[in-house]
Amino acid sequence: MDRFTVTYRIIAESDADARERAEAIALENTVEIPRDVVPKGYIEDTVLGRVIDVTASDEGVWIAKIGYHIDAVGREFPQLLNVVLGNVSILRGVKAISLSANSGLRARFPGARFGAAGLRQLTGRKTGGYVCPVIKPQGSTSETLARLCYLTAVAGADIIKEDHGLANQDAAPFKERVKACAAAVTQANTERAYTGDRTRALYFANMGGHGDQVRDLAYYAKDAGADGILLIPGLFGFDAINRLAHDANFGLPIMAHPSHLGPYVLSPDHGYGHGMLFGQLMRLAGADISVFPNYGGRFGFTMEECHEIVQSCRNPDGVGPAILPSPGGGMSIDRLSDMATTYGQDCVYLLGGSLLRYGDEIGNAIREMRAALSK
Amino acid sequence: MDRFTVTYRIIAESDADARERAEAIALENTVEIPRDVVPKGYIEDTVLGRVIDVTASDEGVWIAKIGYHIDAVGREFPQLLNVVLGNVSILRGVKAISLSANSGLRARFPGARFGAAGLRQLTGRKTGGYVCPVIKPQGSTSETLARLCYLTAVAGADIIKEDHGLANQDAAPFKERVKACAAAVTQANTERAYTGDRTRALYFANMGGHGDQVRDLAYYAKDAGADGILLIPGLFGFDAINRLAHDANFGLPIMAHPSHLGPYVLSPDHGYGHGMLFGQLMRLAGADISVFPNYGGRFGFTMEECHEIVQSCRNPDGVGPAILPSPGGGMSIDRLSDMATTYGQDCVYLLGGSLLRYGDEIGNAIREMRAALSK
Repeated sequence: MDRFTVTYRIIAESDADARERAEAIALENTVEIPRDVVPKGYIEDTVLGRVIDVTASDEGVWIAKIGYHIDAVGREFPQLLNVVLGNVSILRGVKAISLSANSGLRARFPGARFGAAGLRQLTGRKTGGYVCPVIKPQGSTSETLARLCYLTAVAGADIIKEDHGLANQDAAPFKERVKACAAAVTQANTERAYTGDRTRALYFANMGGHGDQVRDLAYYAKDAGADGILLIPGLFGFDAINRLAHDANFGLPIMAHPSHLGPYVLSPDHGYGHGMLFGQLMRLAGADISVFPNYGGRFGFTMEECHEIVQSCRNPDGVGPAILPSPGGGMSIDRLSDMATTYGQDCVYLLGGSLLRYGDEIGNAIREMRAALSK
Repeated sequence: MDRFTVTYRIIAESDADARERAEAIALENTVEIPRDVVPKGYIEDTVLGRVIDVTASDEGVWIAKIGYHIDAVGREFPQLLNVVLGNVSILRGVKAISLSANSGLRARFPGARFGAAGLRQLTGRKTGGYVCPVIKPQGSTSETLARLCYLTAVAGADIIKEDHGLANQDAAPFKERVKACAAAVTQANTERAYTGDRTRALYFANMGGHGDQVRDLAYYAKDAGADGILLIPGLFGFDAINRLAHDANFGLPIMAHPSHLGPYVLSPDHGYGHGMLFGQLMRLAGADISVFPNYGGRFGFTMEECHEIVQSCRNPDGVGPAILPSPGGGMSIDRLSDMATTYGQDCVYLLGGSLLRYGDEIGNAIREMRAALSK
């Protein structure tokens, strides 16, 4: 197959209408001109999207599979999304629900560098779910945030994730904060090693600052001792992940945060399917960990939607290695045990604001998290 | 007022519920921790969002105004969007519908460099709507695309816009294409000047390539002779616009394209209002021209939604100078005269695929467009 395919859910009035809409999508996402003026030869035969299949589904709903040639994409992630759901994102009643890669796509977008297996190595945690406190709130000084890093790391956290709202504000400017937090986690890891602990905490710095500074800031974080970065593709673009994932010199794991991406999944009628956005596209971009709002928290994802995300993160047919799903959003320690049953071991369990209730005893919260995941 | 404000449309069950949801938004967009653990002092008083007003609107719908301090933002556009609608984008039943700037926000995000008045100067077109052909399709060679640039420019087009799908594909790699197209438009402008024409065509190169290459590619385009750039904030991030808009050395106008942004506006229940996204946020980011899908074309925006966009682009209370709206998406010459009545002179009229029907006589299409706008 010389094309990768995208499956769309299309609202239509009849088989003929659905077919017509599918053909319109194939045009819109590639050549964006009326069918009768598509030049013969290379453009019509290769560049133009090709409708592979249109099947009736529920009442008023059809499922269409469209194939795209890698030549319409080139080598950069922004244009890949343009082809998958660029202008078509504006069409009513069209939702991209899954992507199937071919060798052309896999060659140019090979997926995550580390994935689930890589994180086992980096943390040294051979089994069990990952305990991941979120350091916040914004407005705190770098010193306060670094202290939270130390306390949670020394208590046995696997991943210390900065809140996605810790950007580059005056209260704790990016460089000052990252330097202090990385040093705090390094110190905690030294103490852990001294006790014979063979695992270590990884500090993931949130990329604040400008979009065109991401590379420099990521390298700064790495040089300061950070073990990974948190990136928001809904603000910085998916390509920001992709660039760092394929930068061999950088070589740190990347955690993707869902901020600003909500509207892409909240409607059944447009945007992306949950599994496609938070699983397939994150893998394609090169994220190693995909954060998403858990069911039952303050966001409204259903258990089914969460399972779809997790399956897409882990599906062996997906692009590159399986990656780690990371449910969060208003979780509490008393839910962790149930969550562990639901999501299993290859999962990063986030806990944020509620940890702050422990004050200086936040280390106890980390130990309770570990105990809950070990039940 | 030491805060800028964002107005949200909230679905709720009662006044009390609406108030509670508004308070939750103020927390989520800033400190993202439970209210009872928000630290006293600076964080509670300044960083935390503040609910200013909650008013019942339609049945089941409330309008809430929330104030944010610039300290929660810092100086970079990604974090501004994080505060306006970051995690809250994932909450069901919450839509941001307008933004009101204060001096703190205006000082850091002063808006467009050129705007509507600046484009009058750059084109030399003192009155009347702007004729803007779109050069396509992707898959064409650089030579073919450059020829379309020449033919439309010499016939009197005001702005030559590349299709947003012309990225960096092998058929016409970015640098080769931009160099050829810029040279073609320069040649046409020389010929126009020779006939005594005091107006000139501006060539807007579409930023293909990687997100972290935008600045370099924009400078390349400028050095090659391009007069402006086309950028897709839905793929490269709004900050990509903001950075170039405030780069005094760059100093070319920026046209923003709506690709991949559809889900933000298609639902009444989440995302952004049409005017907020395609007017207010584009102005805040620094776009000089905002492309949007016209009513009656192949996208489903209503006339009311389009008017809201246009008003937000022009509102004197907005951030920075008024900018140019640019309706497109399946337009045809026979609709232009009506559109001119609707949108008036300070508007960039896009025409794309249908122009290709003219083949080598595409110059006639440009002249017909001019005539239709002059009626």
